[in-house]
Amino acid sequence: MKATILANGDFPTLNSLINELREAEFLVACDGAVCHLEQLEIQPDIIIGDLDSITERLKEKYSQKIIHIKEQESNDLSKAFFYCVDLGYDDFSILGATGKREDHTIANISLLSIYIHHCKSVVIKSDFGTFSVHKTPCKISSQKGQQISIFTPNPNTLLTSKGLKYPLHHLALPLWAKGTLNEARGEYFTLHSQKEGECVILYHALIH
Amino acid sequence: MKATILANGDFPTLNSLINELREAEFLVACDGAVCHLEQLEIQPDIIIGDLDSITERLKEKYSQKIIHIKEQESNDLSKAFFYCVDLGYDDFSILGATGKREDHTIANISLLSIYIHHCKSVVIKSDFGTFSVHKTPCKISSQKGQQISIFTPNPNTLLTSKGLKYPLHHLALPLWAKGTLNEARGEYFTLHSQKEGECVILYHALIH
Repeated sequence: MKATILANGDFPTLNSLINELREAEFLVACDGAVCHLEQLEIQPDIIIGDLDSITERLKEKYSQKIIHIKEQESNDLSKAFFYCVDLGYDDFSILGATGKREDHTIANISLLSIYIHHCKSVVIKSDFGTFSVHKTPCKISSQKGQQISIFTPNPNTLLTSKGLKYPLHHLALPLWAKGTLNEARGEYFTLHSQKEGECVILYHALIH
Repeated sequence: MKATILANGDFPTLNSLINELREAEFLVACDGAVCHLEQLEIQPDIIIGDLDSITERLKEKYSQKIIHIKEQESNDLSKAFFYCVDLGYDDFSILGATGKREDHTIANISLLSIYIHHCKSVVIKSDFGTFSVHKTPCKISSQKGQQISIFTPNPNTLLTSKGLKYPLHHLALPLWAKGTLNEARGEYFTLHSQKEGECVILYHALIH
């Protein structure tokens, strides 16, 4: 069961992403993100957040769809994600999770390493690329020449790659910059780690 | 000696940041970022990068200011930073380092933890906030109610805070999201760690 979550960062502009919102089986808007949907006449199934950024008119219009979750420990994206998990959703596409405040961008990306323990698949998509999260060993689809960045939530993870332009050999990536600016040599690449089941967050840059 | 570096992410729109570019003592543009300066009739002192995104006209106009650094290991921002360090600059303000490709944003922010070992001060500023880098213990200026996020390049760093709304007590922040969404209670806050001299990257969100 697939859920699409729209967070309150940069609203996507790519047609493919707008269509994904339009055709979502189950669409959750985080707080103020509903305003962008409203402009495109896209109806979310539910709206989650503390609602401090929604207009009174929208609050009224969507009063039956608003879920109040009073809890200070997690951000709106996590509230939306875990609400969907409780409903049985296990395949997630998250849009609007990057852009604007950079600390929110970093936080949202890192949360993938938590979310993957609660679902089958979760990705963050933007106008610039896609973050996905995997456990080693993994075989990842790519396009030849596609720019790839690799982040390891556990900085001690020792990665080895096949199919990347700049191969990794038992390499740790404690500095976030260290795994960036790589490139796929073909239609897939593989990653494995000394210890199995390590979490890896991958970024596929869009090919323009 | 202060240098201002304009990287090739989102060009700032805030007047305060445009003025900083306009009044910079020494302004370095990374590659295509020079196009934005050109529109505002701001002259960079030097241009650094592989120049694959600069037009022929600009290449000609700035031919005396272009520094070619052929090296695949580091990104344009690092090339610009270390070129300035070699010239004796030790105080850095970096603009345009966030926005657009999210992997570049994350990489640039993490590089602060390297740069701080080579200069007195370095910050990344955007329309949304400012990243700065410090060694513990540190006393940090803030405004009451200002949103603060804390990132530790060494995930084992145990931080304790005074003056934050959600105090840290010997707390490690291995998950990047864990140190976000905090708030300053007054005009400053302090951070110290069990081991002295640990690196901390702070984000001060702009108050709008």
